[in-house]
Amino acid sequence: MRQRERIISALKGRGELWEPAPGLVGLSGATRARLAEINATLAVRCRAETQDEWSVPAALPLGVLERADYFASFPQWLTMATHLTDDTRKLERIANSACPSHEAAAWGVTPTVALPPAVCYHIYAALAGTVVGARRIVTAQGGCWRHEGDRFEPLERGWAFTMREIVCIGTESECVDFRDRGIAVAQSFAAGLHLDSELEAAEDPFFAPTGRGRALLQRLKGLKQELRLPIGDGDTVAAASFNLHERFFGEAFDIRLADGSPAYTACVAFGLERWLLASLVASDAPVLEEVLR
Amino acid sequence: MRQRERIISALKGRGELWEPAPGLVGLSGATRARLAEINATLAVRCRAETQDEWSVPAALPLGVLERADYFASFPQWLTMATHLTDDTRKLERIANSACPSHEAAAWGVTPTVALPPAVCYHIYAALAGTVVGARRIVTAQGGCWRHEGDRFEPLERGWAFTMREIVCIGTESECVDFRDRGIAVAQSFAAGLHLDSELEAAEDPFFAPTGRGRALLQRLKGLKQELRLPIGDGDTVAAASFNLHERFFGEAFDIRLADGSPAYTACVAFGLERWLLASLVASDAPVLEEVLR
Repeated sequence: MRQRERIISALKGRGELWEPAPGLVGLSGATRARLAEINATLAVRCRAETQDEWSVPAALPLGVLERADYFASFPQWLTMATHLTDDTRKLERIANSACPSHEAAAWGVTPTVALPPAVCYHIYAALAGTVVGARRIVTAQGGCWRHEGDRFEPLERGWAFTMREIVCIGTESECVDFRDRGIAVAQSFAAGLHLDSELEAAEDPFFAPTGRGRALLQRLKGLKQELRLPIGDGDTVAAASFNLHERFFGEAFDIRLADGSPAYTACVAFGLERWLLASLVASDAPVLEEVLR
Repeated sequence: MRQRERIISALKGRGELWEPAPGLVGLSGATRARLAEINATLAVRCRAETQDEWSVPAALPLGVLERADYFASFPQWLTMATHLTDDTRKLERIANSACPSHEAAAWGVTPTVALPPAVCYHIYAALAGTVVGARRIVTAQGGCWRHEGDRFEPLERGWAFTMREIVCIGTESECVDFRDRGIAVAQSFAAGLHLDSELEAAEDPFFAPTGRGRALLQRLKGLKQELRLPIGDGDTVAAASFNLHERFFGEAFDIRLADGSPAYTACVAFGLERWLLASLVASDAPVLEEVLR
């Protein structure tokens, strides 16, 4: 059993972590407190970069993702919200059913909104059609959803997880500077938690049939980097990513600079449960005991 | 235009509040900061009642709601999460579509999880099948979803909103004492925010065809009370509720006391955006100016 599996299993035994369904996790006790502390510390660091903090909505119109070309890039992850029909006769049939959860599952309306796959889409959507006169940096934390088939592992890869982002809208050089600053912030955050970290060139897992070319371009142009943290057994996990989007979102959402040209954007994203996992691994008492033995 | 409509309209004009879709709201600037302060203050008050704080999962298996008899009680509100099929050919069809968001909306799998209509269901589900030896009080904050047709008003009634709950599992008298203490906490929280408040007997808006009898019983037995806050124009909104469930959840989720009998439960729930709205109305500068004029 890998170290992180032992840790997760111990936390489940203590009732501090539970999985009501694959990819969904609840936390209590010292483990919840540790995540809350990681969140709060990171929030302070991000607020040192910008006072412009947002609370993002819980869902996104599907049209926002269409505008961001999401369906050609990552359709495999998409999760949507659907509410039940308001047809009283159908609701009665559900209410009176011997197996109402099966009945209900059949009567969701056609979805119009997605559960957000990342925080930053909210920000481009809210700024759509505006002129950003001077470099703007926004931070926000929110719940995100990516359905990754049967690859879920508690804290390491969730269907739902928590993301903190900082997003920059400005000129090309402002975005590059921002990205570099973001890397320094993430590295210092890792050091503050006594975690080793490793910066790596990366690419997004684009949907192969339609997105393959993009991954290649992303890597050639050095647009994506990730900070990886150790999670035991020689494995690492990407716990932060640093992304230059060039003018992609500026064009897609008609966000312009003062001179009328499409804005450049960049984002720095932290996956908070992964930071928790790395922190749990780093302070794993049984392993320390083994080392001392 | 009602006072709260003027406030919301002014916040939209300042870019501090936006609605990407009916019932979904984003916040920034001073309005977001005010909500964050309300959240933080309430969290401190709740932590004074219990150290047992949980982070609840982002979704609930539909079977949990079935066990809680939710489908006979409030089917009209239910919102579910559905991810796209993992059939690559269908994903390709979506990715290559001229109108991928319409195409995607048609290819969600049959949902198995609900977006939580309240925080406390997570708690009963996690404690299912256990013995609670001594009174247990748990607090948690989380995103909740209730689809209320076309009745959405920003901050007043959201499809998605934020709920802080405190839940008690124990004997009947422990639950009654907890409920009374919860009322005092909520009233003092309102006073701390300089908000008038009014305690009222209430009933849940049960689905009429199957839940009507329950609302009557709830009222006759005095099981539900609400704290209402003024939101202008002589209107009030229920911003906290105090609920005795008798042994309903103890029986439904097989949560037992030390003597083997089903536990009593009670919960105190706060709807945070409504507290924000009442606070915005109470400090509404234009209205103060009108009074002084």
